[in-house]
Amino acid sequence: MTEEDSIKPVIILVQTQLAVNIGMCARAMLNCGLDELRLVAPRDGWPNEGAVAPATDAKHVIESVKVYPTVAEAVADCHQVYAATARIRHLNTPVVTANEAAKEMHSATLKSGGMNRPAILFGPEASGLDNDAMSYADRLMHYPMNPDFTSLNLAQAVLLFSWEWWSSRAEAITSYEQDWEAAPRAELDHYLQRLEIELEKSGFFTNREKQPNTMRKIRTLFCRSNPSSQEVKSLQGILTALISRLR
Amino acid sequence: MTEEDSIKPVIILVQTQLAVNIGMCARAMLNCGLDELRLVAPRDGWPNEGAVAPATDAKHVIESVKVYPTVAEAVADCHQVYAATARIRHLNTPVVTANEAAKEMHSATLKSGGMNRPAILFGPEASGLDNDAMSYADRLMHYPMNPDFTSLNLAQAVLLFSWEWWSSRAEAITSYEQDWEAAPRAELDHYLQRLEIELEKSGFFTNREKQPNTMRKIRTLFCRSNPSSQEVKSLQGILTALISRLR
Repeated sequence: MTEEDSIKPVIILVQTQLAVNIGMCARAMLNCGLDELRLVAPRDGWPNEGAVAPATDAKHVIESVKVYPTVAEAVADCHQVYAATARIRHLNTPVVTANEAAKEMHSATLKSGGMNRPAILFGPEASGLDNDAMSYADRLMHYPMNPDFTSLNLAQAVLLFSWEWWSSRAEAITSYEQDWEAAPRAELDHYLQRLEIELEKSGFFTNREKQPNTMRKIRTLFCRSNPSSQEVKSLQGILTALISRLR
Repeated sequence: MTEEDSIKPVIILVQTQLAVNIGMCARAMLNCGLDELRLVAPRDGWPNEGAVAPATDAKHVIESVKVYPTVAEAVADCHQVYAATARIRHLNTPVVTANEAAKEMHSATLKSGGMNRPAILFGPEASGLDNDAMSYADRLMHYPMNPDFTSLNLAQAVLLFSWEWWSSRAEAITSYEQDWEAAPRAELDHYLQRLEIELEKSGFFTNREKQPNTMRKIRTLFCRSNPSSQEVKSLQGILTALISRLR
């Protein structure tokens, strides 16, 4: 089985205060291919219209939210539980970074033949997870942030975890295959030869001995931008226009 | 010198609509150790009280914001310019992921002895960067997201780039290919302005309406090669030589 068929991490928001944040979390999750969102005792109840607009096109994430009264019930069918927290010194639970957590989840899922269901808990906006909620976690997850300013908002914390999960999946794209057709170098070379002739006529090369070196430098500059045929035509047109004023 | 002493990436928000988003960007930046924020023509003016609360404790980032009327002025003292965009097929500019962009910036900064100033442009919330703004970039930066849902909000886009920069600072690539110092963008811009004037005089622009688009294409070509000061001087010299035959 491929990883795409397998179970993805479940995001669990515990006692979230603002519905707008739930919507923003849903959007951030879907950006990174996650779509299972659970709520534990959201302050303003559920469903909540305030979450819909911030979710933009992630409406199906919002519509399939499940609500639980307690953390214990929300994680009951999960195999690994992580707790996102900035307070990493208060419990005797191993601490991993978001990147490490994401990689652990992928490997646990693969080892289990796709049956492993990881979950990650995020606490209320103002206070974060309390010790009781954190005690359900087998790992604490933290973000190694600027030590002078670690306060992340809820949706941004969910985004960073989701991004790490998405970026570290096996088939993660590492670079974009660009649909770019560079001109055959003969076209660029033809331009550069013509440029050299016109520069000679214009008295640009005050020192004949240095002329080859100067042209090498000019060629380096243009080769580096690896122009398309259309761009070489533009360069030819510019040259033609500039010298045409002679006539 | 250590990297910590050196210049960090400048975040440039172009024609941002909502002050709340500017505040959230400032917070996300500071989470990841970035603190230089520039605005190009923010819709609702600046300073703006609406940015203060969302910035939470990142107030000094907000207070030291600089505002510019144009992208050209905002990037004038920068040596590398990236443009964040989801539209990666429209311009002839190389595309890198956020992670690759972050690593390139670290490398260029290290190679330059900490003097290299990279900048990254983010467009308006609704529409993203337009082609004119993107033509100032030598690299387009994209986020390899869930292909079914790539729409990131502004602050989250800024966060992900900042996070990639922060997370990759220790592992900066040491094998950056080019070992030269890019010119501040003001020098290239000055050349392009002069080129446009001379092309106008030469009757190059047969269609007035297409002139801005033609100049964008020319700018794209030259930005892509990210020329050094010496190379910009060569380009100026070439232009001077070609037009001097008039006299």
